Amino acid sequence: MFVSFEGIDGSGKSSQAAMLVERLRGSGTEVVASREPGGTALGERVRELLLGANDVAPWAEASLFAAARAQLVSEVVVPALERGAWVVVDRFLDSSLAYQGGGRGLGVDAVLELNRAAIGGVLPDRTFLLQVPVESALSRIGAGRLDRIEAEGAEFLETVAGEFERLAVRFDRIQAIDGTRSEGEIAEEIAGSLCLL
Amino acid sequence: MFVSFEGIDGSGKSSQAAMLVERLRGSGTEVVASREPGGTALGERVRELLLGANDVAPWAEASLFAAARAQLVSEVVVPALERGAWVVVDRFLDSSLAYQGGGRGLGVDAVLELNRAAIGGVLPDRTFLLQVPVESALSRIGAGRLDRIEAEGAEFLETVAGEFERLAVRFDRIQAIDGTRSEGEIAEEIAGSLCLL
Repeated sequence: MFVSFEGIDGSGKSSQAAMLVERLRGSGTEVVASREPGGTALGERVRELLLGANDVAPWAEASLFAAARAQLVSEVVVPALERGAWVVVDRFLDSSLAYQGGGRGLGVDAVLELNRAAIGGVLPDRTFLLQVPVESALSRIGAGRLDRIEAEGAEFLETVAGEFERLAVRFDRIQAIDGTRSEGEIAEEIAGSLCLL
Repeated sequence: MFVSFEGIDGSGKSSQAAMLVERLRGSGTEVVASREPGGTALGERVRELLLGANDVAPWAEASLFAAARAQLVSEVVVPALERGAWVVVDRFLDSSLAYQGGGRGLGVDAVLELNRAAIGGVLPDRTFLLQVPVESALSRIGAGRLDRIEAEGAEFLETVAGEFERLAVRFDRIQAIDGTRSEGEIAEEIAGSLCLL
């Protein structure tokens, strides 16, 4: 089973991904946990480039995310799924669709096209989209440790959040989750949805 | 005018690109000379990643080249063309088509699709493909300073050279050049073809 967590920064998705991994491991299931961009030696170097660089053209940004994703799929996701392990990732394709396709205005379908080849048809079986108001997400992450993309501000994040919402309508694999409740409640909903209760 | 030089390493394309740049500058034309991957701060960092990394999945490789190219187009090529300068690049899209599409077996059309968005329709007006036998190219570059892709060996380069040949048949903008002659003769043919004599 391949599960991805999506949402804007500060939506609580990373915590929920970690809680799911812990729950699965507690029941003796093999889980490979990863994050995007990154998760491989090459991907972590791409991550540094992406979040640290000053001047990145929108299509360069989208292509770098696709590169990190291609490496993750080939090196981590496919081998894990082939041996029957679960894979839980913090961000995957939908982040590119929402941030670069929506936020940067490149268009969801064009970014999907760019990624289609890179990921070779390997899509999550289930994607949980954590939804919280932009202002509460921003207050959760705080102003101190923003990376280049987080620093885009509230208006950019509103566009991204809106695009995530449209993706949840378009793709059956995406389940929108109300992220304003307690961590425990949300974790129970996700576990229930994966038939883990 | 946007001109690219293509061919396998050791084909003499970099020398010819430099000679064309010198000729144009000598006649008072503004020329922006660049190379791929690289040519921008981001692109040079991608170049290091690409040529130095140990384990790069084929689609990650193709996406990284596309990222460097997107940045080059946005930061260098388009602004130069807009102010009426010439742009001369050592490698561009066709290298991805031949090396990743052909050499890595990803398929020329799939790699073209990946790049189409990234370069936003900005194609060279003219592409010179320097053709030399693989064995003489290999002996020109020598064994001492091979990067990760050059080190793939003769069979890989034969596949790449074959793909370059097919691209020259497919795309009118690509002119195949017999690279076994003297540098001066080749430079004259290229200058003549660009109506610079």
